[in-house]
Amino acid sequence: MKPVKVGLCGLGTVGSGTFNVLKRNAEEISRRAGRQIQIDLVGARRDHADCNLTQVRLTRDIFDVVKDPEIDIVVELIGGYETAYELVMTAIANGKHVVTANKALIAVHGNEIFAAAQEKGVMVAFEASVAGGIPIIKAIREGLSANAIEWVAGIINGTGNFILTEMRDKGRDFADVLQEAQALGYAEADPTFDVEGIDAAHKLTILGSLAFGIPLQFDKAYTEGISRIAPEDVSYAEALGYRIKHLGIARRTEQGVELRVHPTLVPAKCLLANVNGVMNAVMVKGDAVGPTLYYGAGAGAEPTASAVVADLIDVTRALTADPDNRVPHLAFQPSHLSDVPVLAAEDIHTAYYLRMQVREKPGVLAQITRIFSEYDISIEALLQKEHGHANAPVIILTQRVREGLMNEALAAIEQLEDVLGSITRMRVEQLDLA
Amino acid sequence: MKPVKVGLCGLGTVGSGTFNVLKRNAEEISRRAGRQIQIDLVGARRDHADCNLTQVRLTRDIFDVVKDPEIDIVVELIGGYETAYELVMTAIANGKHVVTANKALIAVHGNEIFAAAQEKGVMVAFEASVAGGIPIIKAIREGLSANAIEWVAGIINGTGNFILTEMRDKGRDFADVLQEAQALGYAEADPTFDVEGIDAAHKLTILGSLAFGIPLQFDKAYTEGISRIAPEDVSYAEALGYRIKHLGIARRTEQGVELRVHPTLVPAKCLLANVNGVMNAVMVKGDAVGPTLYYGAGAGAEPTASAVVADLIDVTRALTADPDNRVPHLAFQPSHLSDVPVLAAEDIHTAYYLRMQVREKPGVLAQITRIFSEYDISIEALLQKEHGHANAPVIILTQRVREGLMNEALAAIEQLEDVLGSITRMRVEQLDLA
Repeated sequence: MKPVKVGLCGLGTVGSGTFNVLKRNAEEISRRAGRQIQIDLVGARRDHADCNLTQVRLTRDIFDVVKDPEIDIVVELIGGYETAYELVMTAIANGKHVVTANKALIAVHGNEIFAAAQEKGVMVAFEASVAGGIPIIKAIREGLSANAIEWVAGIINGTGNFILTEMRDKGRDFADVLQEAQALGYAEADPTFDVEGIDAAHKLTILGSLAFGIPLQFDKAYTEGISRIAPEDVSYAEALGYRIKHLGIARRTEQGVELRVHPTLVPAKCLLANVNGVMNAVMVKGDAVGPTLYYGAGAGAEPTASAVVADLIDVTRALTADPDNRVPHLAFQPSHLSDVPVLAAEDIHTAYYLRMQVREKPGVLAQITRIFSEYDISIEALLQKEHGHANAPVIILTQRVREGLMNEALAAIEQLEDVLGSITRMRVEQLDLA
Repeated sequence: MKPVKVGLCGLGTVGSGTFNVLKRNAEEISRRAGRQIQIDLVGARRDHADCNLTQVRLTRDIFDVVKDPEIDIVVELIGGYETAYELVMTAIANGKHVVTANKALIAVHGNEIFAAAQEKGVMVAFEASVAGGIPIIKAIREGLSANAIEWVAGIINGTGNFILTEMRDKGRDFADVLQEAQALGYAEADPTFDVEGIDAAHKLTILGSLAFGIPLQFDKAYTEGISRIAPEDVSYAEALGYRIKHLGIARRTEQGVELRVHPTLVPAKCLLANVNGVMNAVMVKGDAVGPTLYYGAGAGAEPTASAVVADLIDVTRALTADPDNRVPHLAFQPSHLSDVPVLAAEDIHTAYYLRMQVREKPGVLAQITRIFSEYDISIEALLQKEHGHANAPVIILTQRVREGLMNEALAAIEQLEDVLGSITRMRVEQLDLA
């Protein structure tokens, strides 16, 4: 069969990785795919020092790529929302298949993009958009397709996980580690997307749709970052047998779907708690398979390229397939997506870690526990640290409770005269793991 | 589209699980696959208490299933080699697609089966044959298809991992834990297949072929069980920062492919070391993606059914595909398999853990280390346990060395007058994980 011709838009980190992996493993890739997959045209504002571009056509205008009649598959690696959106929609309109690593684009514009692709009979593949080289989209969409998925929980931002790992291992504080992460190139100059959970929420939005067959609804994901985690919370969590991880969690409940990104205490013994540094990992719990976990590099030139190129091979294989029998973009047939609502933050159910500063005098704990009991919130553990000062921190772990109820209980407790300042809270998840 | 009709052969643990998962999740599965997947005919010697068979056709002769003109896909869940082989070959001859969970069948007869399927243009899917519900075959064959795979290392037998976990956690000995595993139903009355590594070698043979594009060569896999692991080795390993796991390892070297199943010391901090009880996990290292890991239940009715049903959905989708563009059975096009040889045991390179009993007197260690140095074997760590007796155990960790050379060095050391009895050895792997 004649080679498949690929047009590559963007020659940054992932673009150069994709270029080089396709070239280095060309022979092995042909042995797998049954035909050659060739980059024929590269659209990029500038060359990349790591790529030998002598054997490809080059253009400085990425829109040339999506219009080129020779190109079968367009790879979009420019990132961002607007130009990428226009580029991908033009590619689809021109009958090109698309492979993208762009999580923001899919999370925000995916519904429209997939509808357009469906109408044109082309594929849009996006494995690289979540958790880099880990084939998590394939695992959920195909590998676990027998299951009613119950929940997905993942460490899906390497920068955040690096910071939390350093905070725990070395007792350092957030700002200090962030600076190092920036120096190492793990964090951007403006780290907001990573540390405030926006990047993770993009990825979680995608995972949630694939798991539950709901349209992409990034605007409904609850998002909380890691910038306010204090070193003392890291060590109290440790003392209680937990570690703090920044998780994206999508859970199906009877009322709807929870979509939430936040710092989470997880049992120190579970595998997710032991995923360190910039690595990513996603757990998926299916009703038949039980808990499963997928681990690997969530970013970087070649790990991300691994997913981009795997998509190219999949798309190549499916070129001759009946469009109706392809794996649907969002795992479920577009005509059969579910309208189960994404729940508001107050309707999320989780257990809690709470830290409050109280006056060290008799009766304070009794007042606090009475309020919890009035709100029907069960306490799992209570730890009072004697400081020998007038004030002492009290740490409480609760059982699962609706967030709205917890908000009310905490407001009532914060009213107590002997409770000082506001209460620090973090969510706790057991993740069903022994 | 009209429903796909499935004929199920075998209604034991996995058969009943498959029946029930397909039924329970029927609606969700149709929403994914775009058509119904129905069990139409069940062939089994007896009914199963967990399955309501009122709405399917039944036969006591499994060969009726593979001959039935209504059946599109045959699911082989009878296990064993001979009848299963005949059944699958008959199904293929009759133009049926096949889904099987039978690792022994694929490891031993896979080459013939795939050749027959190729000729008939039918698919044989076998995700459930390795690591139960973990979609590891899909991950290697499709998810990591961009990579030159460097190695695969996995805990792929739950019984063995349960025994090793108990030995470590509770300081118990092998025979004692095996008895409990049998009582719990984790181990068979005749546990040979599990504890001597045969089951793991079947699975490893399959993983090795998928990773490196070589024909299945079960007879060339080196296999060593866990029945001779002593409690003291478990605790010495622990003291050195390692845990003992029964791993299947397939590694590509310049000389050929290593295929080996044996007890292995792995760093206590790495994720594989923290996979406990009956759970399975497989690490795959690709040149682009780096190390990745896949974790989940490796056995049991519904976890295995999860993989069987996912295969049914995949096969259903590919029914209308061009046979030449399907994912090849062994990951690479059958015309492009590699003839890289599987290496003999002597040509495997690993690091070693050694335990030997020596007379406690001056000069003994000097004699031992001189021999290692003569064979150019570097010592990584040496631990002498003072017992206050005349004899003391010496523990040595070496760096990587060719096994043939290690055999010679150990034979020389065992000749020393002050080294008593034979030397215990286990292999050590760092697995590239921080």
